[in-house]
Amino acid sequence: MSIDGRPPAPLMSNPRADRVRDVAKLAGRPARLKTGRFVAEGPQAVREALLSHRVDVESGGAGVVLEVFATQTCLDRLPELADLAGDVSLRLATDEVIGAMATTISPQGIVAVCRIQDYDLDEVLASGARLIAVLCEVRDPGNAGTILRAADSAGADAVVLTASSVDIHNPKAVRSTAGSLFHLPVVTGVEFDFLMSAFRAHGLTVLAADGYGSVDLDRLQDESALRCLAPQQAGPDDGASAASADPAQPRLENSTAWLFGNEAQGLSEGQLADADYRVAVPVYGRAESLNVGTAATVCLYASARAQNR
Amino acid sequence: MSIDGRPPAPLMSNPRADRVRDVAKLAGRPARLKTGRFVAEGPQAVREALLSHRVDVESGGAGVVLEVFATQTCLDRLPELADLAGDVSLRLATDEVIGAMATTISPQGIVAVCRIQDYDLDEVLASGARLIAVLCEVRDPGNAGTILRAADSAGADAVVLTASSVDIHNPKAVRSTAGSLFHLPVVTGVEFDFLMSAFRAHGLTVLAADGYGSVDLDRLQDESALRCLAPQQAGPDDGASAASADPAQPRLENSTAWLFGNEAQGLSEGQLADADYRVAVPVYGRAESLNVGTAATVCLYASARAQNR
Repeated sequence: MSIDGRPPAPLMSNPRADRVRDVAKLAGRPARLKTGRFVAEGPQAVREALLSHRVDVESGGAGVVLEVFATQTCLDRLPELADLAGDVSLRLATDEVIGAMATTISPQGIVAVCRIQDYDLDEVLASGARLIAVLCEVRDPGNAGTILRAADSAGADAVVLTASSVDIHNPKAVRSTAGSLFHLPVVTGVEFDFLMSAFRAHGLTVLAADGYGSVDLDRLQDESALRCLAPQQAGPDDGASAASADPAQPRLENSTAWLFGNEAQGLSEGQLADADYRVAVPVYGRAESLNVGTAATVCLYASARAQNR
Repeated sequence: MSIDGRPPAPLMSNPRADRVRDVAKLAGRPARLKTGRFVAEGPQAVREALLSHRVDVESGGAGVVLEVFATQTCLDRLPELADLAGDVSLRLATDEVIGAMATTISPQGIVAVCRIQDYDLDEVLASGARLIAVLCEVRDPGNAGTILRAADSAGADAVVLTASSVDIHNPKAVRSTAGSLFHLPVVTGVEFDFLMSAFRAHGLTVLAADGYGSVDLDRLQDESALRCLAPQQAGPDDGASAASADPAQPRLENSTAWLFGNEAQGLSEGQLADADYRVAVPVYGRAESLNVGTAATVCLYASARAQNR
């Protein structure tokens, strides 16, 4: 048995082997902190990890994937994954071994051990970031994943998780990002005050997504549309128009960092006070408030639309 | 022990009692179909069910809640739930009984048995519906819940699930709607062809959310904004403007039914062909495609914004 002409390596068949246990341990935070590694499970996540790895290596980086373990059945079904692996170590293993490495009931025959990328916030900002999503104490892995995917779709330059947010490298969070974790820089463990200083230093407007905010997101969108599409309508003297330019309102087309808060408490008073503006997504129906993932999707897409018009 | 001055009823303490088993059985589809009932678990869902019940009863309806079971601890912590229950049967039960009735590991001491509301699509449409979300073979309870919550926030008039979509009354789906299930009419089990005829008969524009669609949602939003905010810019003769009015494009401010497809396959060719337009939510980043919940959020909010401007 050989993969892509490489010399065959013995099939890993002992789910209790040290090497298997070391991978399984990465489901826990202590092992991830100690080793700087995490696990991506299943074909979709592994594919995105390998694609990202290739881009990174081609631009001189170390790459994100350290090793891949897969069943023959999985590789027979998805041969492109073996091609994508390229020079990355790819070991064949039994279903039992993959099952012991993974946390999902059905890992679909493939896992990758990945390097936790160490992105520097200042570097990300210095490279001209225009749209950043900040998760402030967002605790639910599913919500974190939804926001990260929305940020990826909206073309955000980075996602930042404050120190007390969910660990985005835990298996459930990795899974919920559906590969987007490998698409854009994710900066973790940042203290809020440091973050605000960095945003200010790089000229980003900081918008807090806040159901009680006095600034209405729809108005910002209308003003931004008018400025671009009908500039003569958006002049500061046109007081008659409901959507006339207001210097006291943020401009969505400017470089922006959005703050999204905890599921139960939202953003703290201190965080709200530190933001430049508190922006509310309007609720048109009977919903009491918006789920943080839904709110983030609407906010990030509003910025993306204004910045890409 | 008495609740709100009612005569005390004996504490339910036997998790194997027939009455408890009957409630537990509602976690399965056959029992729900047979009885026309389902279970809402936890304080948030029960609160929204009771609020909806009150509104319905006050307007002459039968109400959605049939009975509530709760622990004394839960009622001590959230006394407003007992107040809200009003004339609805409220029985005290032990943690074991509530645990046996519920599917969640931690049902937080309260469940409500609810009536599956039988909404008629024609009635909903005849009452002047302007925004409808249709789930076409959406299978994941979490995605269905996200779309239902987004529809609720966007002020949609109804949500429709086609016959082969997830059962929105299964416990996981009910939970994922976070109470929105009780906020707007949800029409289930409808055949696609019947749906299209009904939409046509009531003059709704049918938009298919489709990553490969030729109509760009952002352009529709810009055109709609211009028509309302700067009508002289949006005239059909203004060919110079990128966002000039195009009669071949749908108008977001018109009454609209949005179609959202299956997680893996999207909408079928037949469904796409039946829609009036295929509309794509732009992807600005590296994400391959949008999660159906994210796409639905962006589409429904785009319509809400245009219709409420």
